[in-house]
Amino acid sequence: MEALVLEEARRISLRPFTLPQVVGPRDVRIQINTVGICGSDIHYYQHGRIGPFVVNEPMVLGHEAAGTVIQIGDEVTHLKAGDRVCMEPGVPDMESRASREGMYNLDPSVRFWATPPVHGCLTPFVVHPAAFTFKLPDNVSFGEGAIVEPLAIGMQAATKAKIKPGDVAVILGAGTIGMMCALAALAGGCSRAIVCDLVPEKLELIGGVQGVTAVNIRDRKVKDVVAELTGGWGANIVFEASGNEKAFDGIVDLLCPGGCIVLVGMPQHPVPIDIVAVQIKEARLESVFRYANMFPRAIQLIASGRLDVKPFISRSFAFADGIKAFEEAASGNPSDVKVQIVME
Amino acid sequence: MEALVLEEARRISLRPFTLPQVVGPRDVRIQINTVGICGSDIHYYQHGRIGPFVVNEPMVLGHEAAGTVIQIGDEVTHLKAGDRVCMEPGVPDMESRASREGMYNLDPSVRFWATPPVHGCLTPFVVHPAAFTFKLPDNVSFGEGAIVEPLAIGMQAATKAKIKPGDVAVILGAGTIGMMCALAALAGGCSRAIVCDLVPEKLELIGGVQGVTAVNIRDRKVKDVVAELTGGWGANIVFEASGNEKAFDGIVDLLCPGGCIVLVGMPQHPVPIDIVAVQIKEARLESVFRYANMFPRAIQLIASGRLDVKPFISRSFAFADGIKAFEEAASGNPSDVKVQIVME
Amino acid sequence: MEALVLEEARRISLRPFTLPQVVGPRDVRIQINTVGICGSDIHYYQHGRIGPFVVNEPMVLGHEAAGTVIQIGDEVTHLKAGDRVCMEPGVPDMESRASREGMYNLDPSVRFWATPPVHGCLTPFVVHPAAFTFKLPDNVSFGEGAIVEPLAIGMQAATKAKIKPGDVAVILGAGTIGMMCALAALAGGCSRAIVCDLVPEKLELIGGVQGVTAVNIRDRKVKDVVAELTGGWGANIVFEASGNEKAFDGIVDLLCPGGCIVLVGMPQHPVPIDIVAVQIKEARLESVFRYANMFPRAIQLIASGRLDVKPFISRSFAFADGIKAFEEAASGNPSDVKVQIVME
Amino acid sequence: MEALVLEEARRISLRPFTLPQVVGPRDVRIQINTVGICGSDIHYYQHGRIGPFVVNEPMVLGHEAAGTVIQIGDEVTHLKAGDRVCMEPGVPDMESRASREGMYNLDPSVRFWATPPVHGCLTPFVVHPAAFTFKLPDNVSFGEGAIVEPLAIGMQAATKAKIKPGDVAVILGAGTIGMMCALAALAGGCSRAIVCDLVPEKLELIGGVQGVTAVNIRDRKVKDVVAELTGGWGANIVFEASGNEKAFDGIVDLLCPGGCIVLVGMPQHPVPIDIVAVQIKEARLESVFRYANMFPRAIQLIASGRLDVKPFISRSFAFADGIKAFEEAASGNPSDVKVQIVME
Repeated sequence: MEALVLEEARRISLRPFTLPQVVGPRDVRIQINTVGICGSDIHYYQHGRIGPFVVNEPMVLGHEAAGTVIQIGDEVTHLKAGDRVCMEPGVPDMESRASREGMYNLDPSVRFWATPPVHGCLTPFVVHPAAFTFKLPDNVSFGEGAIVEPLAIGMQAATKAKIKPGDVAVILGAGTIGMMCALAALAGGCSRAIVCDLVPEKLELIGGVQGVTAVNIRDRKVKDVVAELTGGWGANIVFEASGNEKAFDGIVDLLCPGGCIVLVGMPQHPVPIDIVAVQIKEARLESVFRYANMFPRAIQLIASGRLDVKPFISRSFAFADGIKAFEEAASGNPSDVKVQIVME
Repeated sequence: MEALVLEEARRISLRPFTLPQVVGPRDVRIQINTVGICGSDIHYYQHGRIGPFVVNEPMVLGHEAAGTVIQIGDEVTHLKAGDRVCMEPGVPDMESRASREGMYNLDPSVRFWATPPVHGCLTPFVVHPAAFTFKLPDNVSFGEGAIVEPLAIGMQAATKAKIKPGDVAVILGAGTIGMMCALAALAGGCSRAIVCDLVPEKLELIGGVQGVTAVNIRDRKVKDVVAELTGGWGANIVFEASGNEKAFDGIVDLLCPGGCIVLVGMPQHPVPIDIVAVQIKEARLESVFRYANMFPRAIQLIASGRLDVKPFISRSFAFADGIKAFEEAASGNPSDVKVQIVME
Repeated sequence: MEALVLEEARRISLRPFTLPQVVGPRDVRIQINTVGICGSDIHYYQHGRIGPFVVNEPMVLGHEAAGTVIQIGDEVTHLKAGDRVCMEPGVPDMESRASREGMYNLDPSVRFWATPPVHGCLTPFVVHPAAFTFKLPDNVSFGEGAIVEPLAIGMQAATKAKIKPGDVAVILGAGTIGMMCALAALAGGCSRAIVCDLVPEKLELIGGVQGVTAVNIRDRKVKDVVAELTGGWGANIVFEASGNEKAFDGIVDLLCPGGCIVLVGMPQHPVPIDIVAVQIKEARLESVFRYANMFPRAIQLIASGRLDVKPFISRSFAFADGIKAFEEAASGNPSDVKVQIVME
Repeated sequence: MEALVLEEARRISLRPFTLPQVVGPRDVRIQINTVGICGSDIHYYQHGRIGPFVVNEPMVLGHEAAGTVIQIGDEVTHLKAGDRVCMEPGVPDMESRASREGMYNLDPSVRFWATPPVHGCLTPFVVHPAAFTFKLPDNVSFGEGAIVEPLAIGMQAATKAKIKPGDVAVILGAGTIGMMCALAALAGGCSRAIVCDLVPEKLELIGGVQGVTAVNIRDRKVKDVVAELTGGWGANIVFEASGNEKAFDGIVDLLCPGGCIVLVGMPQHPVPIDIVAVQIKEARLESVFRYANMFPRAIQLIASGRLDVKPFISRSFAFADGIKAFEEAASGNPSDVKVQIVME
């Protein structure tokens, strides 16, 4: 079976690779249809590591996937062969304390696709636990199914924010995750998402969503836009999705009293925070690590038409052109949001 | 100054009536443009009372209003003459304990328009506290401003539900308040609103909103629709907006484990509740009494385009035809949702 | 191995009985020390069934247990032989949707000790999943460990109430569960627990806890006591722990605006609820089904001395006298709260 | 009328001073009995300013007060002459948006005793709004009433933490506010408060409270104590009450997954925060600015006996010795927690 394999930093092969295909009683076997390329895939490709996770041996890439169930284990009841599905790429130990308490994303023993030493899913067939495999309704395409994974991060952020209907949100950073935060914030109850970035192409794309005010921070101060749109009260929520330390400068000034900052972006170094400024607003800070229980919610929003991810699937490549797909994705084309690989 | 006055049950006059017009330091004077007719107005018109509130003396009707500020008190800073506004009809004692704790809607000393012995606003000019008067953005019409009041009830219900992004909601009853609950639930983060009623015209109207599944309970069991749309898991939230005791029959069966019922409709008599059924689902029941702090949120959702109330403003009448407007509203035309009176 | 076996309604034997003793990789084997007798044990003893759960074959009784680990499975890391422990009697499927969402108590496939057809733990040795076995600190006795189970129900109720520090609680019913609710409410942040019952012995016992006001409803109206202790504002929380329909009469009148009723007791029939009264207070109703993640919390409170269960362990019997223990427990002695059986 | 007046930095007089004594319809006039000396009083005394608040003119000190109502305004109903009371020192504009939303502590127009240019209450008689004056039960002394103000800060912190019954808390810093946080955390539902400081006298005092583990950080690592007391899981809540930047070093390591840090202390400079460490735990950060609606809760806890403040009232001085009281309080005696002045 062929797979898209990261041999070492900056070297990908499309070559035969053997992954276990034993279907346990609670597993399903899936024929992969579509796999999105994530920033982390690209980072492993370019650097061979992300922090403590080092690619020491060849590793199959890919963790944003949708496909079709072709075999089910003996105890599986909610799926059947032929079901179109997408998959959560992280499989926790459901008996860990974190999992028992409903935070399975925080279980340190989680096995996550394409995070060394765990292989990913850029290969025609995978075996996965049925509990983390989710049926797609007929009106949700494989491409939409494969974008559920990054959307789930935005959904986790929107859920942590505890949005109240009509809240005004600011999203700092219009990368893929920033855009997913904006979509999730609006679908999740916000009246407005003020999305801030420097790249015109990205702002133009996200600016087309009803409820989004796209702000190029070269041209306008975010604080002024917030003041104008909230009558001086401030935003209820700021999603920090840039991971850029500069974004934290004056971030509390964007908030209304009692507002919330959701930490989504991952700055490389500790960031100075003005604690007293936080206190004067009695601000709350929430943080996000992947997601838990977000796939069914994301699928429902796509299926009902309340959240449209289609404009954010920029390009797709055939599996045979997978290496080119990675090169393109890594090139940082400003009009690309999500690049996907479609198996045949 | 003329006013639409309920003289006694079933008798309305359009006649001169004197209301206090002194503008205190924190008040504004407003020229009324549009007033919606509410079910409670009609109920006072038809019965001369609602429970303990009895119309013993002539009372000006109307409490869903929008207009233009024409004068401001000395201490008012957030409004100016010429501002287009809508008003919260209830004015609480902000120093009461309930108000201090953020629940000003529960202050028993609240003075509420067109609730005896307090006069309403169906008259060309009113004086109102600036703190309960809200500026309308340019792209929000007076008609939309005047429907903010009933929408605020739906918003309160959606807020109490503590919607998580992507929740599936059921709304029992497609009267005006049921429809407002459906709109608020979707704008407030639900992926789907399954709206249930018997009246085809109402179901057709609300069924046109993206995300709504309209169910005529003569044709289909709500439970079956919920099971189908949630893969057998159940709805996260049920808004009981019918006030009909029959609606409570099997209501818990619609819920997913840990789900929530929001009590919006007001049944005339105590309703038998199967406590053990509630417990097996560990269901939560929330309840709604008017609203607090919902006007700014509702206005934001209308202004951003995330919530469209225009299809629900069915007809408008001139102030001179106000009596006819009431007769029409009271006739219960199934295709009417909101009937409004426009001053000239 | 001997066990206390319910042969059929009203007939218990102490006789040899074989239970599986295979220790899986994630299991532990425990030598039982103490088992409390629960109302449900007595109910099975007296009636041979609880609702749909019917004792059709001999069943080992008991589900409130503490003991000592004597063997651990290969993958168990947080326990070792010699650890003193107590056990959660319900073992859910941790991959079910309810479990993944943090509500493993609502998983319908849960296997619960001494609930037909699942055997209980009134036998010298049991095998149990390590994930649901909790280490007791040195200063927590086996007797205290065995009362953690009923206390966990009170803890679940107190957690659902979302107590704010200093809240005033009312507890309707001073049975074992009512008392556990009172202890959990106080330890969980309430300033006062107003406990209401008819039985002087029970009121005297619970009245000895600091913060409890015991009210005999033959002598005083609960509403008057609440008004006096809250300056007329009302209680923040009412725990309905009697299961008696009469307790619901006027229950909303006990609450402050925005207050919460926690449904703990299980009335046999649907109970008429005055929905409008609930709405005028904007009351919230929460409900409880067993517990999830409460054992570590309950153990911490006992170990730190913030919650003292010792006065509520009324009597203990030797295993050899187990049948007598059941007869005594079933006799309804008003000064008995918890009767326990101690293995030797 | 005499008052304790801060003439300028480092110069206090006890001298005649005229404060307005007009009792408005919603005011009460109070004969002051006891006034606590707060760290902010001492800071003004020593430095003549706190940040932007500068003592440019002589200012009466004191804001932690209890006394007796001697006159009530025409509209006051919940108090009467002779009532023993304590007072919230901050009076917000209850019609501001923050106040309407239940966060009156965040209203920027609040007038707060002994914060320039507003005078304090170290004088025999004051006039205060009845809405912010709270009756003391018979079993709560004036001294206890006067300590409600600093306790309210701890209560606000404990409330923001959203304690679940049995949570384990760490308190960094055993100053007065740290101690109040520890008391509020325990009374508010925590099983343990691990209080950390360098000063043996303070640790000994707070260590006498049931549930407190006092840790001298010269001797032991906080992280080790937390690991030991939580079986390696981590603390649910960390109250940062030192305001010392060093306390933030490794603070996230103290938390369990999903844990909460409450920011109470006010560091002088921005503090570097490791955002990624926060995210890996999905930690929540809450912050505190004074308090809202905490006085009734604090009074209830003192009155019920669930929270004992008496050990923390260290010394009291007569009003005539007020200057000496300030000098003593400013001397930083390690065994002093709260120094109070008693009027005669």
